[in-house]
Amino acid sequence: MIVQLHRSATNEEKSNIDSKVALMGYKTTLVKTQMGEYLIGIGKREFDIRQIGRLPGVADIHHVSDDYKLVSRKWKVKRTVIDLGDNVQIGNGALSIMAGPCSIESEAQIEATIAHLKKNKVSIMRGGVFKPRSSPYAFRGLGKEGLQLWSQQAQAAGIKIISEVMQVSQIAEMYDHVDVFQVGARNTQNFNLLDELGRIDKPVMIKRGISGTLEELLSSAEYVFSGGNEKLILCERGIRTYEKASRNTMDVNAIPILKEKTHLPVIADPSHGIGLRQYVEPIALASIMAGADGIIYETHQQPEQAFSDAMQTLDFSESQRLIERARKVFDLRESF
Amino acid sequence: MIVQLHRSATNEEKSNIDSKVALMGYKTTLVKTQMGEYLIGIGKREFDIRQIGRLPGVADIHHVSDDYKLVSRKWKVKRTVIDLGDNVQIGNGALSIMAGPCSIESEAQIEATIAHLKKNKVSIMRGGVFKPRSSPYAFRGLGKEGLQLWSQQAQAAGIKIISEVMQVSQIAEMYDHVDVFQVGARNTQNFNLLDELGRIDKPVMIKRGISGTLEELLSSAEYVFSGGNEKLILCERGIRTYEKASRNTMDVNAIPILKEKTHLPVIADPSHGIGLRQYVEPIALASIMAGADGIIYETHQQPEQAFSDAMQTLDFSESQRLIERARKVFDLRESF
Amino acid sequence: MIVQLHRSATNEEKSNIDSKVALMGYKTTLVKTQMGEYLIGIGKREFDIRQIGRLPGVADIHHVSDDYKLVSRKWKVKRTVIDLGDNVQIGNGALSIMAGPCSIESEAQIEATIAHLKKNKVSIMRGGVFKPRSSPYAFRGLGKEGLQLWSQQAQAAGIKIISEVMQVSQIAEMYDHVDVFQVGARNTQNFNLLDELGRIDKPVMIKRGISGTLEELLSSAEYVFSGGNEKLILCERGIRTYEKASRNTMDVNAIPILKEKTHLPVIADPSHGIGLRQYVEPIALASIMAGADGIIYETHQQPEQAFSDAMQTLDFSESQRLIERARKVFDLRESF
Amino acid sequence: MIVQLHRSATNEEKSNIDSKVALMGYKTTLVKTQMGEYLIGIGKREFDIRQIGRLPGVADIHHVSDDYKLVSRKWKVKRTVIDLGDNVQIGNGALSIMAGPCSIESEAQIEATIAHLKKNKVSIMRGGVFKPRSSPYAFRGLGKEGLQLWSQQAQAAGIKIISEVMQVSQIAEMYDHVDVFQVGARNTQNFNLLDELGRIDKPVMIKRGISGTLEELLSSAEYVFSGGNEKLILCERGIRTYEKASRNTMDVNAIPILKEKTHLPVIADPSHGIGLRQYVEPIALASIMAGADGIIYETHQQPEQAFSDAMQTLDFSESQRLIERARKVFDLRESF
Repeated sequence: MIVQLHRSATNEEKSNIDSKVALMGYKTTLVKTQMGEYLIGIGKREFDIRQIGRLPGVADIHHVSDDYKLVSRKWKVKRTVIDLGDNVQIGNGALSIMAGPCSIESEAQIEATIAHLKKNKVSIMRGGVFKPRSSPYAFRGLGKEGLQLWSQQAQAAGIKIISEVMQVSQIAEMYDHVDVFQVGARNTQNFNLLDELGRIDKPVMIKRGISGTLEELLSSAEYVFSGGNEKLILCERGIRTYEKASRNTMDVNAIPILKEKTHLPVIADPSHGIGLRQYVEPIALASIMAGADGIIYETHQQPEQAFSDAMQTLDFSESQRLIERARKVFDLRESF
Repeated sequence: MIVQLHRSATNEEKSNIDSKVALMGYKTTLVKTQMGEYLIGIGKREFDIRQIGRLPGVADIHHVSDDYKLVSRKWKVKRTVIDLGDNVQIGNGALSIMAGPCSIESEAQIEATIAHLKKNKVSIMRGGVFKPRSSPYAFRGLGKEGLQLWSQQAQAAGIKIISEVMQVSQIAEMYDHVDVFQVGARNTQNFNLLDELGRIDKPVMIKRGISGTLEELLSSAEYVFSGGNEKLILCERGIRTYEKASRNTMDVNAIPILKEKTHLPVIADPSHGIGLRQYVEPIALASIMAGADGIIYETHQQPEQAFSDAMQTLDFSESQRLIERARKVFDLRESF
Repeated sequence: MIVQLHRSATNEEKSNIDSKVALMGYKTTLVKTQMGEYLIGIGKREFDIRQIGRLPGVADIHHVSDDYKLVSRKWKVKRTVIDLGDNVQIGNGALSIMAGPCSIESEAQIEATIAHLKKNKVSIMRGGVFKPRSSPYAFRGLGKEGLQLWSQQAQAAGIKIISEVMQVSQIAEMYDHVDVFQVGARNTQNFNLLDELGRIDKPVMIKRGISGTLEELLSSAEYVFSGGNEKLILCERGIRTYEKASRNTMDVNAIPILKEKTHLPVIADPSHGIGLRQYVEPIALASIMAGADGIIYETHQQPEQAFSDAMQTLDFSESQRLIERARKVFDLRESF
Repeated sequence: MIVQLHRSATNEEKSNIDSKVALMGYKTTLVKTQMGEYLIGIGKREFDIRQIGRLPGVADIHHVSDDYKLVSRKWKVKRTVIDLGDNVQIGNGALSIMAGPCSIESEAQIEATIAHLKKNKVSIMRGGVFKPRSSPYAFRGLGKEGLQLWSQQAQAAGIKIISEVMQVSQIAEMYDHVDVFQVGARNTQNFNLLDELGRIDKPVMIKRGISGTLEELLSSAEYVFSGGNEKLILCERGIRTYEKASRNTMDVNAIPILKEKTHLPVIADPSHGIGLRQYVEPIALASIMAGADGIIYETHQQPEQAFSDAMQTLDFSESQRLIERARKVFDLRESF
């Protein structure tokens, strides 16, 4: 159950609502975000919710049967739009494109990528500076220095930045430099990280876990939302299956399912999703046709020489072709 | 290794080629289809294939590293087109649509479905008369009688029929009534059935196994081809994964991968692929955008009352909308 | 619902019971096996089953909530024992061991294997004469001739035979030569084959499908049982997962779960289960400790030269060690 | 490549070895643990390792083809023994048993559990005070206060503690109170956490990821080892598969495979592994038979009233029976 509270609700009113809901046998949690205040009730006993709905201080009340509550579309049918400033939005009915290298490698690479994005009117650049790697001996990213270099150039060019945060201590380090914090597939259920991201006011994009269920992805988003941050984006990035013809199995099915279950924007990552360069374009276009609000993919001026993910990275001409086609596919879908 | 033989090759020439290939340490199989004759060599020793290429009776020779040979695109880059007669083709650069109920249930149902297809200029009807069911107590289809009833009406209306064959003895029973034999997901590796389907001259559509790899699907197609029947179609129909938000996980990735690996047409089955009615359209459109040559899906005049698969069956107005959109998506893809 | 009928029940009584059960809204199926006669009722409406229980001709009546009925332990708590004659039994409280090559290859191989089995007091020999192979170009077994050769020697030595049947037409060919028909993992849901095996009076061992659920395995057994053949054995042989450190993932969990859900004996196949020779013994012993009634595994006088499955086949000294340890592990388990 | 350095090696010698290895085209990492010093070389060029082996300061040198190096059994055949003090060891050839509740709940619960363990001569108690929960609204553990209460009683009773650490900041909080840090399945690839655990001198048990490969588990252990902490234990706790008859699929296969690939002790967690109380014992015994060095499982004085994991928790009488049987199974295995 979600009780939306009036902005003007007094502490006394809130406390009264809380005890009335608790009296019904519900465990209550008070959630305060930048956008509103909610009382979440977890329980199973059925009762007439109008009893609570009529209390002073209550703006609205919704029965939500899902285990996740605040991210459910059962109470908020209107789609969430994420505003990055400077007219860059995600989930606003236009196609969002986020492109860039797997890892930030050098000033030259940043410049080349920004030029490529600007030429193609793409306003969000992806790139990793803290890299999660299976082996401790692999390249782990340029770190904070790389991020500063990058953000300087991106801000100058009017390009927004999305980059992965791996641990709580990096949130403060990255805060001034990124426009969207990305939670990677290995951290989808890093609950402490999610808790902390609930305390900031910048957008967070959560990737589905490597073998995460959609239910788990939505519950992870619920962590951030219930922590106080409503600016959330979900990302499908392929799951682990028995099939080894591709690196991962992009779960295109997840896209229409998520769009039905949540009001949050849904982004597709075809690069990790299928993991093989020659199939990135068809999977990107298929994901858009299936309902994605945008795509995030890897591109590099010389994919063969990329420090990481060379196998799944597009060169700039492939990237340009994808952008052009993606926009046409999106327009056709929107015309339906 | 595939040695394409001249139509005019003499038995002596063939025997000479065979022994020369065997001499290289290769196990040989002579394959004779309605369209040509091939000598397949299985082995690993490397040698200059021109030695064989120059022998009398050899039309062409190809090195094929895949485990499957004749269905590989490594030797036959030109796409296979399946001709059902009366200008109905699959894989010819137009979108193929096959629609109809899960099970053939009654004359009235057949009539209603045919009328729906004709109205929408769809020329292939799907339907099951022999139904594979997990439980022995479930409805197993109308059988041969249902098929006769159906084929009579379909032929009168100029509609082609695709229907599932479950065992060898049904091939003869069905032969005069179907235009495409379908091998279901539980029979993808029913090798005896595949062997027998290699001996007929009607098209066969093989569905991917419930947890079949793409390699296995291609090897199953190789059974039919090497048995003598080149008229083959592959079908992606969803795989079994840990995710239970949908009945199956439609593996859209399989489509561009198969299109690269084989010259055979690839059809998408979004009904079984995702298994939930409200997502059939987006998954169908996504599959087309990913490169499918066609779609096969379930539609019924009253899905709620269907004998089977009610949960994943479209009603006729949903079906009509899907057909219209599918054609637009296909046209956009072909314009790329 | 299962209604056990009296052996002496008249046709009139049966017909009366049938219509009374149908009147309750249940779909009825009359099942006649070599051991008894049952009326299966499929439906959901609740009613007092004593109403039926008191009818003349009814021996007993059971409510069974599982989708499978006759193989459920909910009505038959007593474990099924399979009698192969000559004091060879499966599921009788002693450990069953079935060993032999993947494929029957030659007379010498048969002799060597039989000698190995007799030396170790193993009374059931496994071996394939009809081999399901992914590729049409692989060795497909010696066929009927191989089986005759084998059965002649086995019968002379007092050894029982279990061998895979791949299609309906092979049942008659194999009938006089095998003691247990094995249904392989690719045929677990070959329903026509299961139907036909329900019509014979020889034991059938059904392997779990490559990605089959336990529910599906039990439903496949229900096919054979409801077809008239109660002599059923189930076999866990590994499932397909994302993990590629072993060929398959032996699902040891399946063993205690099946033992709880069904009265049929459960055999473990560690050779296919894990697929790597060095791990066959620990997985075999673990399976016995988990509750298996027996094991089936591959052994060959020279595994490196086996026509198939060389990677997972034990040599005779490894086999002997496994047999000795398996019996000790079984004895310890039975002492609990 | 692993170069073991002499304890007496001078900085100059180390630097010389490092540059010689780098000259061969290898990327080098110097690892210093409480037990020794190693130079890890990552590269592919082949050369005669004796060239390095003869350098002053080198104690030994090993070629290790695995991606993980220091945890591989390819260089260290001798099994690692973890010493918790007071004669409590893991991997020393005796069976390790770790038992206790899912969550620490109360003083009474701690007392009851300790009494149960002492009665059965079990010297390690498990329990969670920081609980990773899918939903933000679920019970998240008693936290630091619970841990203090627990460790006080455990130390007084001579019982060792293993408990899960979820984030870097908890390491210091927990350090004085736990004997083994547990890394949970959702944090197996939380690389920052692993890095930090490499800097401490207390044992760490890493659970396999929810769908983690064995390769990934070993690479995660390599993080901690290469960070400086050799006191490592691995734990198999079930993987996520398509099968839903049990909560997870305990991968018993992982046990013999890990024992072959690494010198670290391997513990089995049957409670999470299969997730259903009635099957915990057979799966625990099977895991021991398959080669596990020990088991960790959940027990509670009143499982039905446990705050979490009630479905998979044994009561004390079930626990006692498991302990007795586990020891007999272990003894039999060791007799082989």
